[in-house]
Amino acid sequence: MSIRETLGGPLGPPPQLWSLTSSSCGATPESVSRSQLGAGCAQTSQRRRRSLRVVQSGGAKRRVPSPAPAPKALPRSLESGGAKRRIPSPAHSTAGARFGSCNREERSDGSRHPPGQNEGVTSREIALQLDAADPLASFRDEFFIPDQSLVYLDGNSLGRTPKRTIERLHQVVEKEWAGDLILSWDHWLDLPRRIGDRFADIIGSRPGEVVLHDSTTLNLFQGVHIALNLRPDRRVLVVADDEFPTDRYVVEGIAHDLGLTVRSLRPGIDLSDVAVIVRSVIDYRTAEMVDVASFTDEARRAGAMVLWDLSHTAGAVEFDVHALGVELAVGCTYKFLNGGPGSPAYTFVSHELQSMVRQPIRGWFAQKDQFAMERPFEPFDDIRRVLLGTPHILSLVAAEEGIALSARAGMGAIAAKGRALVAYAMEVIDHLGLTTSTPRDTARRGNHVAVHHPDAPVLLRRLAERKVVADVRPPDIVRLGLSPLTTRFTDVWDGLATLDDLIRSNDS
Amino acid sequence: MSIRETLGGPLGPPPQLWSLTSSSCGATPESVSRSQLGAGCAQTSQRRRRSLRVVQSGGAKRRVPSPAPAPKALPRSLESGGAKRRIPSPAHSTAGARFGSCNREERSDGSRHPPGQNEGVTSREIALQLDAADPLASFRDEFFIPDQSLVYLDGNSLGRTPKRTIERLHQVVEKEWAGDLILSWDHWLDLPRRIGDRFADIIGSRPGEVVLHDSTTLNLFQGVHIALNLRPDRRVLVVADDEFPTDRYVVEGIAHDLGLTVRSLRPGIDLSDVAVIVRSVIDYRTAEMVDVASFTDEARRAGAMVLWDLSHTAGAVEFDVHALGVELAVGCTYKFLNGGPGSPAYTFVSHELQSMVRQPIRGWFAQKDQFAMERPFEPFDDIRRVLLGTPHILSLVAAEEGIALSARAGMGAIAAKGRALVAYAMEVIDHLGLTTSTPRDTARRGNHVAVHHPDAPVLLRRLAERKVVADVRPPDIVRLGLSPLTTRFTDVWDGLATLDDLIRSNDS
Repeated sequence: MSIRETLGGPLGPPPQLWSLTSSSCGATPESVSRSQLGAGCAQTSQRRRRSLRVVQSGGAKRRVPSPAPAPKALPRSLESGGAKRRIPSPAHSTAGARFGSCNREERSDGSRHPPGQNEGVTSREIALQLDAADPLASFRDEFFIPDQSLVYLDGNSLGRTPKRTIERLHQVVEKEWAGDLILSWDHWLDLPRRIGDRFADIIGSRPGEVVLHDSTTLNLFQGVHIALNLRPDRRVLVVADDEFPTDRYVVEGIAHDLGLTVRSLRPGIDLSDVAVIVRSVIDYRTAEMVDVASFTDEARRAGAMVLWDLSHTAGAVEFDVHALGVELAVGCTYKFLNGGPGSPAYTFVSHELQSMVRQPIRGWFAQKDQFAMERPFEPFDDIRRVLLGTPHILSLVAAEEGIALSARAGMGAIAAKGRALVAYAMEVIDHLGLTTSTPRDTARRGNHVAVHHPDAPVLLRRLAERKVVADVRPPDIVRLGLSPLTTRFTDVWDGLATLDDLIRSNDS
Repeated sequence: MSIRETLGGPLGPPPQLWSLTSSSCGATPESVSRSQLGAGCAQTSQRRRRSLRVVQSGGAKRRVPSPAPAPKALPRSLESGGAKRRIPSPAHSTAGARFGSCNREERSDGSRHPPGQNEGVTSREIALQLDAADPLASFRDEFFIPDQSLVYLDGNSLGRTPKRTIERLHQVVEKEWAGDLILSWDHWLDLPRRIGDRFADIIGSRPGEVVLHDSTTLNLFQGVHIALNLRPDRRVLVVADDEFPTDRYVVEGIAHDLGLTVRSLRPGIDLSDVAVIVRSVIDYRTAEMVDVASFTDEARRAGAMVLWDLSHTAGAVEFDVHALGVELAVGCTYKFLNGGPGSPAYTFVSHELQSMVRQPIRGWFAQKDQFAMERPFEPFDDIRRVLLGTPHILSLVAAEEGIALSARAGMGAIAAKGRALVAYAMEVIDHLGLTTSTPRDTARRGNHVAVHHPDAPVLLRRLAERKVVADVRPPDIVRLGLSPLTTRFTDVWDGLATLDDLIRSNDS
């Protein structure tokens, strides 16, 4: 039963509210040079502030804008795609989107709104209305949230704690471990694959294509080796200079040890001699999303393998490995999948590739007849051949509960709310005149927003003092993660309004 | 405060009871050919059974021998070494002990008892007396044991559940994760090293020489690469044919990928061109313990590195890496250290080697300034350079509690009880006429015993039906793990008596 059916309500939120968050853009974009922002890219709007009233809300002082024009429905709703999987079409791609710069001013419908047209949508009142209409609102009750007044905008670093995870850990520790002891390995043994099968609902994989194990770093290392082994005649690895650190380190380490060349991912790159490209689908700073179908297709035509990092993707946006032509991917489960601190990562290998997988680390959990201990190494014929050592059961079952919760909510609904949250955040950012590098194109971004300010680390500390939790990413980004199952529209408003207040105090 | 001080009692158990378990040997050894037992080696005694009475005990039927002669104190007590660290002296070593065969009939004092001399020590009554005198008995109360009547003899596969682990997980999940959220990473970040520092009390390492991370398999892979890099001019790896599977697989995989040679560990092996030897200190089947000091010395003189696997050692017997000359070691924490199912493994690298460590997998948790994300890879100068990806916090804190409990009990006391348990088990095995390959020499064995029977898998299932949990290891071993903090002497008696009963039913 889908969450919408569960709620017994209408199939979606009131369209005029959801559509409000979809595409208006009250900014006057002002280019900021790329070098000025380091590896990032940013967009700022002229500061067009109205007076703000301070009101009491939920025990904490809240600043809300003074009365604004009534919201108007906009013609193009974010929700027009319904729950259908969204596959980025090559028609939307640009060299910038594909190679790491940002699409300033580009919108999914190609249009732009004149500045100021929709100022009214950016008030706390609207946020409250959006929360009231949120079909996923009840999912917040599935999480143990000791302090409801905390504005947590870092669910993209560490997701919140599902209540079922607490129950499950009790059960696993007190019954399965303490009670059933070693006998529990009978069912623990296959947990990495059983949990992996749940990724059908998260990334569209088929049963037997995903296992949960180890860490993103280890899985990247293994994934690159698996891909390299499929391109034995090529000696070039590709990764972007501004790729997430551990992805870069892994690629550079392998290249160093095997005497391969690392080529930087740039527009117009020659892929004709490339063995493997490691690439994040969603940029960890700006939330810019790659056109996966197009890039995978381009790589395939050039004969290169792509190992995708889905860390900021799975559980955040709709993603269908098979529709997108993805053959090999890894990612973490502690962000949008709410799997708990350091929960195990996953590896996806398409069925078509599995028989060709040769793992760089031979471990006993890949061994076909694991407890016939005197035999030579003879790995499983299936996805389990990428397993290594004894799985971390406590961390694994916590991950399972997080993943199960996303599966239950449905990625269609989660992605829709994610788009609405980010669209609303972009509205507020523009309204407050903050600087962002998060793409304007709703089809080209994930579920966080980047606000640039030279004093980002100071702002982060001051935000925490005012009970707003975010994080910073170099060189100057305050990153606000909007995790659909737990983030409220009021969190977006409160977090950004507080940030704006701090910036004004800081700058004055 | 030591456990003995805590208990406020005498500094040791009544000597006449503990010494009873130390060295008597009522067996008439009978050689069993090595080939007959596969890779193992075994010793059987003539079956000299007395009539057994069935009595009710703890709700379960127990078989106890009919009245036996009163126990006598034996001249040589196991406990003579007190709590001082025991370092195997080269004087005790034999080629057999060093290269994988077993020391039949050898005893630490070189003597042998005539058959039948101490039959009286093998009664349930004696086991009860030993339990009553056990200075570590109260530590069993530190564990959550839902069914006290279960005879659990597999704590060497999966240790029991410390009560503090349950409390700690509550705290970490409900307060640190759910409450403090991302801010908890401030103190989680250094957990792998902080927990590693606790190994000072377990294996004699110095602070900053151990980190908890990943799995034994991964750590073996990394350890071999670290060692290989220190012997760049050598191209031979050594591992025993009957080494634990994952150790063999890792070595063979690395050799395959790098074009190295794998040489089998055998008596008289030439080490002069060997880069790295991977070796378990304690055999996972027979509990035979290598003379580590002697072997390490021999390897060093030949210019070879040794990577020790301490999986069956740490938390079971006294071990001092520095006194033994160990430079590199890995192991798991879910056996005798009671760290929980699949709890993270550890890597020990002596301070002297650390600056020369080059890790085969470059991950962001090894990076010096981890969150200055745009820099090239520049690893820590210390033990943290062997870390890779995000640590599995839930599994990690569970491991910490298990390790802390062993540290609190003290390895001197734990090892003393371990020796007493195994000595008692060997007495009972001999008394019942069972076949074992566990060494006779108390200084050359760990904390489990191997009982051989061709129908081992069937016996294991029948044992479970009678609430005795053990495990099997190929080809024919019923393995009984004696975990000092949780195993009672009565468990040893009950488990072996039940096994004997099943064997007699099976054989008749």
